[in-house]
Amino acid sequence: MDDFKKDESRARDESAPVGDEDCASRIARFGEDAPLPLDGGGHLAPFEIAYNTYGALNADKSNAILVCHALTGDQHVANTHPVTGKPGWWSTMVGPGKPVDTDRFFVICANVIGGCMGSTGPGSENPATGRPYGLDFPVITIADMVRAQIRLIDHLGIDQLFCVIGGSMGGMQVLEWAASYKERVFAAVPIATTARHSSQNIAFHEVGRQAVMADPDWRGGRYLEEGVVPRKGLAVARMAAHITYLSDEALHRKFGRNLQNRDSVTFGFDADFQVESYLRYQGYGFVDRFDANSYLYITRAMDYFDLPADHGQILANAFRGTETRFCVVSFTSDWLYPTRESREIVKALNAVAANVSFVEIESDKGHDAFLLDEPELFATVRGFLGAAAERRGLTRQGRREGAREEARTSHGQTRAVRA
Amino acid sequence: MDDFKKDESRARDESAPVGDEDCASRIARFGEDAPLPLDGGGHLAPFEIAYNTYGALNADKSNAILVCHALTGDQHVANTHPVTGKPGWWSTMVGPGKPVDTDRFFVICANVIGGCMGSTGPGSENPATGRPYGLDFPVITIADMVRAQIRLIDHLGIDQLFCVIGGSMGGMQVLEWAASYKERVFAAVPIATTARHSSQNIAFHEVGRQAVMADPDWRGGRYLEEGVVPRKGLAVARMAAHITYLSDEALHRKFGRNLQNRDSVTFGFDADFQVESYLRYQGYGFVDRFDANSYLYITRAMDYFDLPADHGQILANAFRGTETRFCVVSFTSDWLYPTRESREIVKALNAVAANVSFVEIESDKGHDAFLLDEPELFATVRGFLGAAAERRGLTRQGRREGAREEARTSHGQTRAVRA
Repeated sequence: MDDFKKDESRARDESAPVGDEDCASRIARFGEDAPLPLDGGGHLAPFEIAYNTYGALNADKSNAILVCHALTGDQHVANTHPVTGKPGWWSTMVGPGKPVDTDRFFVICANVIGGCMGSTGPGSENPATGRPYGLDFPVITIADMVRAQIRLIDHLGIDQLFCVIGGSMGGMQVLEWAASYKERVFAAVPIATTARHSSQNIAFHEVGRQAVMADPDWRGGRYLEEGVVPRKGLAVARMAAHITYLSDEALHRKFGRNLQNRDSVTFGFDADFQVESYLRYQGYGFVDRFDANSYLYITRAMDYFDLPADHGQILANAFRGTETRFCVVSFTSDWLYPTRESREIVKALNAVAANVSFVEIESDKGHDAFLLDEPELFATVRGFLGAAAERRGLTRQGRREGAREEARTSHGQTRAVRA
Repeated sequence: MDDFKKDESRARDESAPVGDEDCASRIARFGEDAPLPLDGGGHLAPFEIAYNTYGALNADKSNAILVCHALTGDQHVANTHPVTGKPGWWSTMVGPGKPVDTDRFFVICANVIGGCMGSTGPGSENPATGRPYGLDFPVITIADMVRAQIRLIDHLGIDQLFCVIGGSMGGMQVLEWAASYKERVFAAVPIATTARHSSQNIAFHEVGRQAVMADPDWRGGRYLEEGVVPRKGLAVARMAAHITYLSDEALHRKFGRNLQNRDSVTFGFDADFQVESYLRYQGYGFVDRFDANSYLYITRAMDYFDLPADHGQILANAFRGTETRFCVVSFTSDWLYPTRESREIVKALNAVAANVSFVEIESDKGHDAFLLDEPELFATVRGFLGAAAERRGLTRQGRREGAREEARTSHGQTRAVRA
């Protein structure tokens, strides 16, 4: 990984991963001399990107897959989560022998800027004050997140990613990569996503933000300094959002009107129904692993996402001239990013004669289907990556040999983290 | 209105309407000697029902229509609202010459118990303490609300209602009337409703309740005593609920991604988008006219609504033997109470050979369509009521004559309040 050295003056990587062995993240630091320009004007500097990698980069650096995470995700794709102790959020999809096969591909996932798992965000120290940024952190966009990822990919010495893949907000990043860095993306898999955030999507996010801001412990965004946490507000935001990730059918199937550890309703405001108990658990569990201001910033970035607007209101313009191979995936019961929004993406790609396949997967699990055990999703991703790898000349055997070679020569630089 | 006297010992009516002339409500008071039995056990006594009437009751008291209001509605159907100064919530539907024609019918609408517009609810004085009930108010059900309405209808001397009509929670009351008091309902119009609250419905209500309870100004429900109001929590609850009343399409058509009085986004957390501004307006406007604890109690009553469960899990049993004529109405874009739930009601009615017509109205306005300017809804209600009135022997001319007669002889008792 000699290429690490080429921008050593501008970025450096921690010599040892941060955290426990099993769920360690690496941190790439970009100094005052490498500011990140932002859509909102100005720059972010210095900044850090926390990321994990799985598998090994091959000799010609052609087998890298960037996984982009969703709103409340992070870089812990396939390893035990350091806070919750649970398996990584996409450990069904990413790992040895999995659809995104870490025996074959070098998988990278970075916490987005604005996030709270190690990348620079509103909870980071503001170098101008020595205190947490809070609302002094600049409002960022999906394009800003991707611009930061480019820095990381440069830093890793990778010219072209074999694939960028992600669901929901991860899918927005995939689209942004494919639109703005065409030559750097061989294949792209946007899942359960949209090219522009709808009015209803904005509305749900606004409710979440209002819930956070309504909590007096939010303290105008300065809660970290004041040693408190807007737990209740953030929990309410998460509860409201969580409903939108599921489908009516999924809720009916999972919970129906079943009661929680009781034979009859209590005529009170306890969690009589299982669905109430579930929501409270989801809401308050979330608070322990997520930062309230990051929630504000990341939802805002999603609201601002409008790829057609960035290209003269014609989405096809975003992809004109692309050589990237696309696999667009939606789920029948996803009402947050319904299939028709994926169809808009496919239509735009067709309009520029792009190489695109589209799969609408029958599922009653709602938007969350992309994170769950969906065999058709796994088969789709496995099949698409396999065919694309063949086109890219990534022979299975060759890569494995290459990967082993790489692993031997680059210890401490490309570190395989396994769940 | 001689029949008023028959239960004078048990109920009395205020001699003068409460409030301004234009938006006055009447109050029926039921004393300690007339307790209301509750589904949760125990009784409510004393209790009051605030109600409005429009038009005149005919001589044989056969032209009364009870309008049942939804979660955040009240008795001000067709008159200027005393708090907001806006037209009544169903003034497009109810009034002289309107589909529910107050030139022909005597229209009654009562604030539900648990409400906050004059009927006894958690904000009322608890006679045991002399302070507002707060959470000492008993948790009530839709059946309890209807049981209270029966008292009012008895009090008004009406044996059989010509029709009971309502949308959303109002539709639940219609179903409860039709199931439990068959002989007292000639016709029933449940609109945009369900026979049992779904898991998703409960989930959204739980989010709202959690938002209210998360507000430190809720004070464990004792905010009235402490001179505060959980404004922010209730506003967040309303915002979340409000999204569910609209459709994705309606939000897209009304707001899209339009910006609020600005040319570009501000890269901040102000209401950049019109939909955000609209939601904030809806949320904080609601707080001025609604009580937070009433919101808890009424949403809980809706969650508990499960007509099949009350009848051996077979909805048809609820209607067995009914002679009531039904007109069931749903809207294509209503995802809160989707058409399939109305179909379940229709199937159950068909299973007992009831007289039922069913109309699914094409609309992109979502659940709120029942409150809006929907010509097909108006035509449906007008047509159904006209045909049912003929069956009931309510000749148009005769009723008008009767109505005029009644108006002359019963001033101060049946008072026509017009918007």
